[in-house]
Formats: sequence, structure tokens, C-alpha cells
Amino acid sequence: MPTIPQHEEQELGLVGEAMHRFVTELYPICRSITGNGLRKTLRLIQKEIPLTIHEVPSGTPVFDWTIPNEWNIRDAYIKDGKGRKVVDFQQTSLHVLNYSVPVHTRMSMEELTPHLFSLPDHPEWIPYRTSYYKPSWGFCLSHKQLQELEPGEYEVVVDSTLEPGSLSYGELYIEGESQDEILVSCHSCHPSLCNDNLSGIAVSMYLAKHLLSMKRRYSYRFLFIPGAIGSIAWLAGHEPLIPRIKHGLVVACVGDPGRFTYKKSRRGNAEIDRVVEHVLKHTTEKCEIREFLPYGYDERQYCSPAFDLAVGSLTRTPHGEFPEYHTSADNLDFVKKDSLGESLQMYKTICDTLEANRSYLNQNPKCEPQLGKRGLYRTMGGDSAQPLNELAMLWVLNLSDGKHSLMDIAERAGLYFGVVEAAAKALRSAGLLSHAPEQQRSNLVH
Amino acid sequence: MPTIPQHEEQELGLVGEAMHRFVTELYPICRSITGNGLRKTLRLIQKEIPLTIHEVPSGTPVFDWTIPNEWNIRDAYIKDGKGRKVVDFQQTSLHVLNYSVPVHTRMSMEELTPHLFSLPDHPEWIPYRTSYYKPSWGFCLSHKQLQELEPGEYEVVVDSTLEPGSLSYGELYIEGESQDEILVSCHSCHPSLCNDNLSGIAVSMYLAKHLLSMKRRYSYRFLFIPGAIGSIAWLAGHEPLIPRIKHGLVVACVGDPGRFTYKKSRRGNAEIDRVVEHVLKHTTEKCEIREFLPYGYDERQYCSPAFDLAVGSLTRTPHGEFPEYHTSADNLDFVKKDSLGESLQMYKTICDTLEANRSYLNQNPKCEPQLGKRGLYRTMGGDSAQPLNELAMLWVLNLSDGKHSLMDIAERAGLYFGVVEAAAKALRSAGLLSHAPEQQRSNLVH
Amino acid sequence: MPTIPQHEEQELGLVGEAMHRFVTELYPICRSITGNGLRKTLRLIQKEIPLTIHEVPSGTPVFDWTIPNEWNIRDAYIKDGKGRKVVDFQQTSLHVLNYSVPVHTRMSMEELTPHLFSLPDHPEWIPYRTSYYKPSWGFCLSHKQLQELEPGEYEVVVDSTLEPGSLSYGELYIEGESQDEILVSCHSCHPSLCNDNLSGIAVSMYLAKHLLSMKRRYSYRFLFIPGAIGSIAWLAGHEPLIPRIKHGLVVACVGDPGRFTYKKSRRGNAEIDRVVEHVLKHTTEKCEIREFLPYGYDERQYCSPAFDLAVGSLTRTPHGEFPEYHTSADNLDFVKKDSLGESLQMYKTICDTLEANRSYLNQNPKCEPQLGKRGLYRTMGGDSAQPLNELAMLWVLNLSDGKHSLMDIAERAGLYFGVVEAAAKALRSAGLLSHAPEQQRSNLVH
Repeated sequence: MPTIPQHEEQELGLVGEAMHRFVTELYPICRSITGNGLRKTLRLIQKEIPLTIHEVPSGTPVFDWTIPNEWNIRDAYIKDGKGRKVVDFQQTSLHVLNYSVPVHTRMSMEELTPHLFSLPDHPEWIPYRTSYYKPSWGFCLSHKQLQELEPGEYEVVVDSTLEPGSLSYGELYIEGESQDEILVSCHSCHPSLCNDNLSGIAVSMYLAKHLLSMKRRYSYRFLFIPGAIGSIAWLAGHEPLIPRIKHGLVVACVGDPGRFTYKKSRRGNAEIDRVVEHVLKHTTEKCEIREFLPYGYDERQYCSPAFDLAVGSLTRTPHGEFPEYHTSADNLDFVKKDSLGESLQMYKTICDTLEANRSYLNQNPKCEPQLGKRGLYRTMGGDSAQPLNELAMLWVLNLSDGKHSLMDIAERAGLYFGVVEAAAKALRSAGLLSHAPEQQRSNLVH
Repeated sequence: MPTIPQHEEQELGLVGEAMHRFVTELYPICRSITGNGLRKTLRLIQKEIPLTIHEVPSGTPVFDWTIPNEWNIRDAYIKDGKGRKVVDFQQTSLHVLNYSVPVHTRMSMEELTPHLFSLPDHPEWIPYRTSYYKPSWGFCLSHKQLQELEPGEYEVVVDSTLEPGSLSYGELYIEGESQDEILVSCHSCHPSLCNDNLSGIAVSMYLAKHLLSMKRRYSYRFLFIPGAIGSIAWLAGHEPLIPRIKHGLVVACVGDPGRFTYKKSRRGNAEIDRVVEHVLKHTTEKCEIREFLPYGYDERQYCSPAFDLAVGSLTRTPHGEFPEYHTSADNLDFVKKDSLGESLQMYKTICDTLEANRSYLNQNPKCEPQLGKRGLYRTMGGDSAQPLNELAMLWVLNLSDGKHSLMDIAERAGLYFGVVEAAAKALRSAGLLSHAPEQQRSNLVH
Repeated sequence: MPTIPQHEEQELGLVGEAMHRFVTELYPICRSITGNGLRKTLRLIQKEIPLTIHEVPSGTPVFDWTIPNEWNIRDAYIKDGKGRKVVDFQQTSLHVLNYSVPVHTRMSMEELTPHLFSLPDHPEWIPYRTSYYKPSWGFCLSHKQLQELEPGEYEVVVDSTLEPGSLSYGELYIEGESQDEILVSCHSCHPSLCNDNLSGIAVSMYLAKHLLSMKRRYSYRFLFIPGAIGSIAWLAGHEPLIPRIKHGLVVACVGDPGRFTYKKSRRGNAEIDRVVEHVLKHTTEKCEIREFLPYGYDERQYCSPAFDLAVGSLTRTPHGEFPEYHTSADNLDFVKKDSLGESLQMYKTICDTLEANRSYLNQNPKCEPQLGKRGLYRTMGGDSAQPLNELAMLWVLNLSDGKHSLMDIAERAGLYFGVVEAAAKALRSAGLLSHAPEQQRSNLVH
């Protein structure tokens, strides 16, 4: 396992704390796939990185879909016969069925019951429910709360609006040497849920900060979007740009302490798939690699058959596989600053690896070059059968025929990419390697 | 495991009984690769399905072979010195070396011995022996019988003829929408052996009955032929038709209670190979898949290098791997009506799967279509991470790019073909899928 | 396991003894990458086989390298204050740092120490050290010897010369029916080390003797060269010949009793790789197959990216993996006559297999030919499910479509190549096979 220098580890600790503070700031906001909660979230991100906020008007057709009316909510509660608020949206944004139509009425417990959602298996937790495309209203509450409700008449108020407006999303394009892009996409439409959405926002934002500070070969595009309809809207509006996307990752559920899980792109053997698998296997004790599945976050849209983009998703515990998922228990305690820090570090390493993964041409391809006269080789023979890092140099020389990327070489040699990259750097400095023309690069298919 | 509805199971039980009765009817007949026993068998099949009986004259050259003289036998026995029949062909057709030349003579026990065949390891069983291409005569008897024979003179009679005539075979062509054919071939040349030949005849005949009763995409060709020389004769006489055969199965040994065994075609990854493997793995507890071997039944001829047809063989316990094989113990007790019924069901499921295995084109290939507005999706979000059968729909949509058949999709999704087929049906009804042009279909090679 | 007939085993024993005697004769000579020790070695080989000895002048550029000055040594010793020789080159050629520059001086123990090399972990053994490309001098001695040296002044003499001369190598070209070549290369530059260099020389020489005595399809080229610089010099001088090399093996470390180890060529699936793996797995109890590594003996040069020759290396225990490696313990006791004999036998079998590995065309590709009428088949049917060697014939017939070599057939059939070769021979004699045109031969890539 490559180890992180101590000063970097300290810095990472500070960044982990900063990410957790940002999550804390966003936590109370009632986000949805449209509306002011989402807009406010994007503006808070905009304070940190130069995000552009786009608005797509309600009614805009986006492929098979239509941008829905904008939803906004001021308040919502249930009052019992004695005028006590037994469920109160002001306490947590989860209490209201997301996208509830407005309602103000009185009804019996019996009439109210079909509009109440709870989790009998986790009686302390409040579930998260939505109804974006079927007009409905409802309240989510803990099962304990539900069981305390007595028969009688209740006043029910959802002070919401569902009116023409727009869908908001944030975009940050960081120009690199090449127009070839790496896409980083996170959903930003969930209300008070920390791992599922806020962790992804925080890690993406700090990854963008990092990339903004350095010279980069690739261009990067960050999208902070409402799930599904947001990526559909972006893709529908940017078809000419889509071929530029060479690699991409959907960021979500990166704040819990679970092990890293990578879900491959539809292609299954794209460079991004191989790079993430390689980096995970060489830098973490435990990780899991999964095949593509047409279910999950926005990779579903990026990997639809007409686009088939090389976009995978790197999470820690995947959605739906931790009990706190889509409940009030996905809270500020559930996401850890260390986990956020580690996740950011992993994304940085993946970007560094993509940046460095080039193909080279051995300038002395006939027999080995004489490394000794260039100071790249031990000078006394016979003393060891251990080639040490010379082996990485020999692998790079042997396979730098324009058909193998450094990742191809690392995989064949069974070495960590960083070791091979360092060898290539030394050989380039000695004039023994040149860049391979891009068209000769391996397509990285095994 | 998909389960069979109860009414179908009852029907299958009845069909199993009917097949066993048909086996019982054919059992006593002395079949061979030519002659009246074979002809009588074909006529009994003809009573059930509209079989055409063909006759290929003796002496006809068929590739490297020549149709032999026709063999017919009326009687055969060995009488001891006291005139008692110690071996009697009337008791079982196995008693005579199949294709024995006529003989009527007296000889000592010593002279007779080289003409007698028994099984010391199974002293109660009579072996089955043939000598089609080397003129010879002989008797098969139980080892117990052999040991009871005393020294002395014996009268030996084989009342057979070996004269110019013809080789008979039965053929049933069932026309479908397409000229593309599925071949179903079974050998019908063994005398009183139940699993080895009669079970295959019965299952093929009932499969033909079933196919005759329904509209089919493929055409089907059923061959009831003597082993080796029969398939050679058919292939030699029908070269222009051979390219129409897209898939095929050789049916044999399908009446014992052993587990299903599929032997792949020479190609090894033909559609038939993948379909049978998939169906077996999803519908039986235990099964075995074997690679092609140029030894066995008529798949040897169909898979010879100039034809290389996509023909495999689906049996239960393979030939030579049950002790009763080629002995009198392969009798009416050895084949079970339930086994015959299950085998027929398996062949039906395979044909259904081949019929349904098409490629489709997603009509909304850019992002996912909105399933909810078409009534194909749950309407409330957030309540479950379990996509249930929606997942099959998402897989079909994701991979229906004209390059994947439904079987490709089922295999990648890890779902049973029937589940994927049902999803495709629902999506087609909603206008979300169209047939892919045939030339774009996957060649089904992994 | 195929067994070796007794008379061949006896002959092999005699040849093993002869090889060990030859190793014994070469043992005392102080070889290096240039000089009279190497030259004398080649002349001794020349007495046995018609070797051509080539001289490449010092200063000749060979790709990225230059032929160094020639090194010769007459004597070397260290004398203590009492005039006693405490280290004496006359006792073993290992005592001097190979390629030591001349020196004649007196110095204190303290000054001398950095020039002394020993092995603390093996206090009885003398290490082997070289300094070909960095001018230096030194002595190698046992650690025990080193510890007995007392403080005081020592006289140090290396009576060597490093002057323009030439690099010598031996070459034997054995012409075959085809210009396609099999390369057999062994390094011959190590001083008194038996397994590491002398075993390879002996086995190569006796393999050449064997090949000279028989008619061969391939041409063979044997190289007896100094390691690295020798193969680089040969390749630099013979570029037009390189494409003729179809297969090759680097011979080294073939005298110890360890198990056979094959290191694949860079291609990884070349015919030589498949043949050696097949032969090892079918003829030895234990063996190891390793992937290519750009470290080792001269395969590093043959497999450099511009040449990428199908050259692997067959050793017993690989270099650096036996403790005696590069020490005085790699001596005449360490190499065994039986091991040398077995190694020679393995190389012979590999050459025989390459020679026999052709593709054929089935002359009756439509259905099986009638083997019985050609005496190639048992005549009575029904008596066995065991096809015995008929199965090899059926495999050869089934796959002899011009796309499969006999090795392809052996691997698919799971049979030893020799069995398949015998079947092909029988079928050819019966007129059932013809040679496939060379251009139709499989490229042997899986």
C-alpha cells in the first residue's frame, strides 16, 4: 500500500473537517428536484467555487421527459384537536412527502392515515418519500410518533406551491490542455440526507477546488444536478458536447465509514473502470468492484445506449445497502470527516492517474538501452537477483511500443501505477521515451 | 427456479404415460440400420405424426460410405443335443448379433464359443452387439445362460437375409414463418433397448406434436434415422438445405432418471449452446454441460468440419455412462414416465427460448424513457432500493441497441430468460421497443 | 506420462555423463564477456560441433551499446605482510572481481576492505562479482577467509589487461528444409560457475549434435554468446535474418535437480510458449510456467519491443532462486549428470514437437470417413463406449480444416501431442489427410 506523507495526512484531516462543516451548513435545507432549496444549495456552493447556475424552464421537453413545475414549500404541519403540532416541517424537511401538492383541511385520523409514512422496523427514524410525477401529499414521521396519534380530528397544512418555474443545476467547467473531458456528477436534490447527496456535493466541490489549483491535461466538468431529470436535462441540452466526455464518475454516498465500492460503466472495461479498480486495489485494504447495473444514480442516464459514456460510480456503502439510507438516520453523525477526507483523496488519486496515463514510445526499441551510462542502473553485476525499481524501468521500456499505456504496463507488470509512472518519468528525463501519438494509444480494451 | 403450473404438470404426467406406452409398443421390434423392424417402427410413428418415410437403395454412395444391403431376420436359435432351444431370438431381439449373416449348421461347443457374447460382470444381462460392416454371425446371451451350456453338439440357426433393398428413415418438416430451421434428430436403429433409442423417438415425436399445434417463427425438421449411416445419407442427399439449419439437437437417452447432460456443438458458443445451458441452469437443480467431443451420436456427422452445424446433444445420463447401456437391462423398467415427461418439457422450453430470442431496438435510446407515464413504474420514489422486475425492463432498454439478443441481456443481467422476455413484451406493448433488423442481430459469440 | 524406452534411458545416462565431463573440462577456465577464457571455451565446443567463432572488434557500436575493450587476466593475488598469498586467483577464477583493471600496489587492510567481497550468510562460499562497464578492481573471498585477515599491510596484484581486442561468440547454423529458424541461445561468459552457464553450454551442444544427425524441417541457429552484450551484438549484426526466427529458447540453469521452469516469451501465447507448456505438463510430474518478465538472460534482448521474438527460456530452478547462484557453490557437485540428461531430453522433445506441429486438411470433410474399411477401426459395434485411440483419429479428422494445428487439436482434445501426432500419421498413410497450405496455418493465438 502506498502511504500518505504525514503533512498531507494532516492537511487531509483539515479538509475532512471543512467538508463536514459544509455538509452541516447544507443539512437543514429542504431540497427537491426543483425550487428554492436546490437553488440555495447551489448558491452556497457558488461561494466556494466559480459555479454557473443554470435554469431550465418548466415545460421544457428533455428527450422523453418534461421539466416539471417548480415546487416550493414554506411550511407544513399536522395539528391535533388540541391545536398541538404533532408533525412539524420546521423540525426536519423529511416530515413532508417531497413534492406534496398544497393542502389545508381538517380530517379524521382514518382519512389521514393513507397520507402518513413510517418505518415500523426502525420506530425512531423518519422515512424519506417523494412523489414527483404523481400529484399527491403526505407526511413522513417516526413509527413511534405515528403510534402516539390518537383518534380524532386533525388539521392538515401543506403550504406549498407547484407552479411554472424552472429546474436549477450548477455547472463548473475547468479548462485543461485538451478538450477531452472528465465528468464529475453528483445529485443535489435530497432534503436533509447527509450521506445520500450532501457527502457527494462536498467531495465534488473540494475535488474541484483542488483541480482549479493545478495545471491539468484534461478538462473537467462538474455537475451539481437533481437526480435523473437533471442529468437528462443536461444531456438533452448539450448533445454536441457529449463526445468530448472521455471518462466520468458519479459521486454519491462517500461520507460513511464503509468500504469503497466501484460500479463499472456499461462498457465494463473502459479506462475509467480499469483505473478506479487499479487504484482501489493498490491503495485500500478492502474494496469492492461491481459490474454495471442499469439502476442507481445518474450513471443510468450517462450509460443509456445512445450515449454509452465511460461513466462509473465510486461510492462507499452503495445506496440502499446501509439501513440509514433514505431515513432521518442518514444524518450529521452518520457521515464522518475522516471518511470524507479519504474519499476526496481517492478521487484525487484517480484523477492524477487518469492525467498520467499516457502511452510512450521507447526511443531505443532494439535491445535494451544501456541504463548504466545514464545513471539509471546499479553498476556492479552479479551481486543480486533483485532488480528493484529497475524492473519498472525495464517493463516501461519493454512495453512502450505505442500500443500500451502506463496502466497497461502497470497491470501486466503487477506494479502500482505510481511506481511505473515514476519509472517512465526517469526514462523520459534521460531521453529514452517520447510521447506516443494519441491515435496510436491503446483503446484499453483487454 | 421457475415452477410449472399444476394443470400443466398434470398434463405432463399424462403425456409421460403416453410416451411410456409408445416405448412399450416399440420395444419388442428387432430394429437395425435397415430392414423391416426399422420400417415398422417408422410406420408406428407415422400413425401419430405426418411423417414421410424415405427409402435409400442399397449401394447408393453417400460421401465416403455406401448404403449396405438390407438385413431382415425371421428367426434365430441355438438348440442343444436334446433339441431344446437354449438361446431363442423369439424371446428378445438382443439374442442375435445384429446384422448376422444367415447360418444353419451343427457344431461343437468349442466351435460355437467364439460366436457367443456375454457379460461376466452382469451375469443376468444380455449384451447388445452388432456387426454391420464385417460379415459375421453370433448370439448374445446372459453369462448365466452361457455357463449352463454343456459340451456337446449344437444346432445353430440364423434365419436372416442380407440382400439389396433400402435404408429407411422418417422425416417431418414443419414449416414456420422463416425458412431458418431447427433440426431435431434421433437414432431409431436399436432393437429392444429403451433408453438408448426408444426414449429419444418418443420425446421427439411428442415434441413434434406440440410444435404442429402452434404458430412458430422457425421451421422444424425432425429426423428418425438409423445412427451414423442415416445422418450421413440424409446429409449427402440434402446438401442445398444444410445452410438453413440454424440450430439443432440430437435427442437420445432421455428416459432415465439421471440428471440432464448437454454436450455442446463443435462451435462451442453457438446460440443453441448458450440457450440450452441457460435453460438447464435456470430450470433444473442439477445438470452438466460438456464440451464437444467427436464421438457419440449423429452430432458427429452434423459437426463434421465441412458442415460444422450448430447441433448439440441433450441427454440425461450419457451413453456408456449407465451400466444398463447396451444390455437387456435398458428395458421398460429403466425408463420412467416422469423422466420422459420432464425431458419433453425441457425440449419445449428450449424451443420456446430459441423462438423468443430476438434483438430489439430501444425507441428512446437517449436516457431512460419515462416508464411512469406509461404505467410501467411505481410512482412513489424513495420507498425502496429494490427495483424488482423494473430491473429487467431497465436491462432490456439499456442493452436493446441491436447488438444484444434477449439471451445476451438475460446472461449479462443474471436473470432467467423468461423474466427478460416478459419485460421485453411489456416494453414492446408500450411502443418502447421495435424488432432489430435481422442483419444487426448479435452473432451470439461471446 | 509417456515413458522412455529402456535403451534410450541408458543412452541418456551415457550422454548425461558426457555432458558432465564437458562441464568439468570447462569449469576451471576464467571466462568473461570478452577475452581468452571465452575464446578457449568456444574452441573446446568447436572440437565437438562445427561451430563458427566470430570476433566483433572493441569499439564497434551495437545499437545503444559499444563493444568494450577485451579483458585478459594472467594472475591476481593478495599477499600478507609475511609474503603469504591469502587470496589466490590460481585457486579459482571467482577470486577476482571479473573485469578488474590492473593493479599492483601495497595498502593497509583499511584501504583494501572496500575492494573485498564476501557472503556473511554463507561463510564458506566465494561470491561472483563483475564490473564490466565501470572501471574497478576487487577480490571475492569466503567470509571465513575475510575474517582471518589481520590488520597490516598487503600487497595487491591484478595482472590483467583491458585493451582493444574483440568480443568472441560461437554460432552454428544447421540448415533444414525451410529457412524458418529455431534459435537456441546460451550465455557462455561466466567463470567457474557450473549451473549458471556451463550446464546451458553442455545441453545446447548435445542438442546440436542430435539435430545434426537427423533430417529436419526447420533450420536451427545455436548461439554461444556472452550475456547481454553478446545477444545485442548478434542482433545488431544480423537484422535481415531476424524475421526468419520463428521460435527460440534461451538455455540456462539446466543442470540442477530442481523442477523445470518455463518463462514465456513477451508474446505470451506464441507457438513456442504453447509447445513448451504442453510438453512439460505431459511429460513431467512437476513444472512451473511463468509469464514473461523483462529481466533475466538474453530473452530480454530477443523480446525487446522492436524484435518481439517468440523466444522463451526453459531452465530448471531459475537464476537467483537457488542459494548457490553466483557463488562458488555452483560447482561440479551442484550439477548432476541425470539432470543434464533429462534437460537434454526435454529440449529434444520440444524440438520434435515443433517439427511435427503442422496443420492438415481432412480429405473427406463431409461426415466421418469410413475408418473400418481402411483398417483403422474396430469392426464390431456395441461392445464398448471406450473409443481408445480412435478418439485421437476422430479429433484429428474433425479439426483438420486448415485452421487448427496438431497442437491446437491436442489441446482441445486434452490429449498428449504425441498421441495426436500418431493418429495424424495413421490417417495420412490412409490418404485421409493432406498438408494444409502454410498460409492457412493457425497463427496459434488463442
